[in-house]
Amino acid sequence: MKHVYTGKTKDVYALEDGNYLLKFKDDVTGEDGKFDPGANTVGLTIDGAGKAGLRLTKFFFEILREKNIPTHYIDANIEEATMTVKPATVFGNGVEVICRYRAVGSFLRRYGMYATEGQPLDGFVEVTLKDDIRQDPPISEDALHMLGILSREEYKVLKDLTKEIGNIVKEELAKKGIDLYDIKFEFGRVGGDAHVALIDEISGGNMRAYKDGEYIEPLELERLMIVE
Amino acid sequence: MKHVYTGKTKDVYALEDGNYLLKFKDDVTGEDGKFDPGANTVGLTIDGAGKAGLRLTKFFFEILREKNIPTHYIDANIEEATMTVKPATVFGNGVEVICRYRAVGSFLRRYGMYATEGQPLDGFVEVTLKDDIRQDPPISEDALHMLGILSREEYKVLKDLTKEIGNIVKEELAKKGIDLYDIKFEFGRVGGDAHVALIDEISGGNMRAYKDGEYIEPLELERLMIVE
Repeated sequence: MKHVYTGKTKDVYALEDGNYLLKFKDDVTGEDGKFDPGANTVGLTIDGAGKAGLRLTKFFFEILREKNIPTHYIDANIEEATMTVKPATVFGNGVEVICRYRAVGSFLRRYGMYATEGQPLDGFVEVTLKDDIRQDPPISEDALHMLGILSREEYKVLKDLTKEIGNIVKEELAKKGIDLYDIKFEFGRVGGDAHVALIDEISGGNMRAYKDGEYIEPLELERLMIVE
Repeated sequence: MKHVYTGKTKDVYALEDGNYLLKFKDDVTGEDGKFDPGANTVGLTIDGAGKAGLRLTKFFFEILREKNIPTHYIDANIEEATMTVKPATVFGNGVEVICRYRAVGSFLRRYGMYATEGQPLDGFVEVTLKDDIRQDPPISEDALHMLGILSREEYKVLKDLTKEIGNIVKEELAKKGIDLYDIKFEFGRVGGDAHVALIDEISGGNMRAYKDGEYIEPLELERLMIVE
């Protein structure tokens, strides 16, 4: 097992069988000591954050597997805070895909002239580039295609999968009386046919969730969703 | 004739026949006393800037009329620095449509991870909201449709017209050995059928043009294009 990459919240190891091991860390993104899933810097360390994120990720990835939705997931070991995944290549240097059900965050900062806080949105999908220096700029299908990051066919699959997976997460949260406002995914190319598949994680840090109009912190969300 | 609106670079008057008169001012957008077509503030006043902008606008709008491309243009009076136009309503509170042939400006600031300065682009079209407070954010077709700013049918017409008009301007500049890097348009709904039509102006202040790799200031461009 060889250490190949140190991420903000995960370390990556190459396994001898060609798969990879993701080690979920207790470091979470944020600014000024406050947990902020949208932030690009590691803000603080919370004991148990890695395992909690993995527990929710395992929960959702196993639902997706049952529904035959392509992901990189193989299995997870909660005690070790590790997840085994298939190798994947990202689009360009990585893109994030956001599915929005309510107007909050950067959507509201950009489109506040036409939207009010918390206004319902139609599962609107947008893609942003992973580029800390340029503050993860949004990018259109045309630009993704022109810059050779994603083909038009891949974009269509990615958009459809985003809506489908977003709705699955939304419904699972709704079973606990929780409203999903938005959720952020990463996709990559997996397998010999390089099919578009969900990668990374689906944890509290990837979404904004509310209960009775109150924002739920990622760790609290993971507690509410996973009854041990 | 009734004064109805004071813009950054134009005043608008309602005519008795239902049409409008645009008075081109010598105020140009910029920052710190420097002419910058992309700026949202009026930076300085240059004697003759209004007439020069109108001269180039008249030149292009009359080419478009010959080609049956819909615009709001009726006629222009260079001496008075006025243009008569049909009434138009804008999309939402106004959108701008950019057609890009080379990577410069905000495109490069956003997508510099994947593009180098001056790299050829394929006539890529993007829409931004006119919203000074939020720095004219880019917006996708899906968001324009969801927020009720533009229908999908209107978006298609607007995108096709943008490419068509952009290419006409590019070819006219090329006749003088000038390279068009990018150009910004405004569109609105015109006539009883509310068809999508080009509005506002096509002046040096709407585009970035280069000759032998050197940027050409808007007023210099207008001088080069219009031989009196």
